Amino acid sequence: MRAQPKGVVEQDHCATPDIATQEQLLNAAGELMIERGVPDVSLSDIAAKSGLNSALVRYYFGNKAGLMVALLRKVLHPAMLQLEHLSEMKLPPQDKLRIHISGIVNVYFRHPYVNRLMHQLLSDDAATFGSLIAEEFSKPVADAQKQILQEGIDAGIFRPVDPLLFYFHIVGACDQFFYGRYQLKHVFGLDSISEDLKRRFVDHLYKVVIGGISRRTERGDGAND
Amino acid sequence: MRAQPKGVVEQDHCATPDIATQEQLLNAAGELMIERGVPDVSLSDIAAKSGLNSALVRYYFGNKAGLMVALLRKVLHPAMLQLEHLSEMKLPPQDKLRIHISGIVNVYFRHPYVNRLMHQLLSDDAATFGSLIAEEFSKPVADAQKQILQEGIDAGIFRPVDPLLFYFHIVGACDQFFYGRYQLKHVFGLDSISEDLKRRFVDHLYKVVIGGISRRTERGDGAND
Repeated sequence: MRAQPKGVVEQDHCATPDIATQEQLLNAAGELMIERGVPDVSLSDIAAKSGLNSALVRYYFGNKAGLMVALLRKVLHPAMLQLEHLSEMKLPPQDKLRIHISGIVNVYFRHPYVNRLMHQLLSDDAATFGSLIAEEFSKPVADAQKQILQEGIDAGIFRPVDPLLFYFHIVGACDQFFYGRYQLKHVFGLDSISEDLKRRFVDHLYKVVIGGISRRTERGDGAND
Repeated sequence: MRAQPKGVVEQDHCATPDIATQEQLLNAAGELMIERGVPDVSLSDIAAKSGLNSALVRYYFGNKAGLMVALLRKVLHPAMLQLEHLSEMKLPPQDKLRIHISGIVNVYFRHPYVNRLMHQLLSDDAATFGSLIAEEFSKPVADAQKQILQEGIDAGIFRPVDPLLFYFHIVGACDQFFYGRYQLKHVFGLDSISEDLKRRFVDHLYKVVIGGISRRTERGDGAND
């Protein structure tokens, strides 16, 4: 466990060995998490899957937690950029909400382990990863949602909705759908989520949520409360 | 690891030693899962927490998986009974939906690990636990939801909604809220979920969902699709 990883790396003479090797390790880790259905994979499993030495993980990422954070940054980077652009776009709030829901669903569709991976890091070491995960990944999502909800309220389209409750509602629904593949199989008899089913999930969630937070719904539903 | 647990048990001469000891082990396992935020706890940790010998787990439950199934049965039993009664009750579908959402939320409020525990069992051994978990815990929930949705459609109150998408939506939202305590803390600055916050989550989820699946919403929202 105290090998000299430097020596291992120096055997590689490709033009961009570092980035290619790091990608290879991160891809192997992500694939294992999808195959196993849990985010807790060992360094030796990642090494075996990637065909590389586990000492390379220590060389590039320090330890398994370092690799997990790097994996989150890699797979969430495009979505975080999209989220920034969305906030600045001049669009009706209901359109922003649909784009946002579609964006979250697409992340979970390709990387269904991200939520559980964050949770695993937090369970392992909340003191180290609590603010990192909150600042880099969770708060930008919560802030974007809060802004969209406020824009809808200001435009007289949405009723007031607690952004905290809204955050867990949306993230939880998406996470469960894409991570719950065993339930999908054993309860509903489906082996995987197709592009069509993914699209129908976006439509379902958007339609229920937009119907449920729009002002006209609140008035219509008043008799039931 | 190959101790004779019979010998250990026979030292206990209480009137109902078996049930009390089993409860003690199950309670210890559940408390550990809440403390750690992950459902993967070891037999020795459960033994230490309960003050009992880990051989007792093998004696009563066979192995850790057996204890986990017993824990699920114990904590979900009241909710499964309530679900049966709900299906038979003569109530408007929207009232049944509110009672159902409130019932799920109350389970997660007290036992926030149940969903992840099922997932852990399925990840460990889907062949053994896939149909057990589906038949005992997941399908009754999915079936009850399907029935409530159909009653609402038949009464002309709800629009058609895919029960599969609805299942993951509701279960995921509830699971995330109660299991995401690190996100609650680091993103929103809250240490725990109070009775009041729990009640507000039920209100939020019910109000959004009932607004989003009611017929009058569909007509009102048609312009956005």
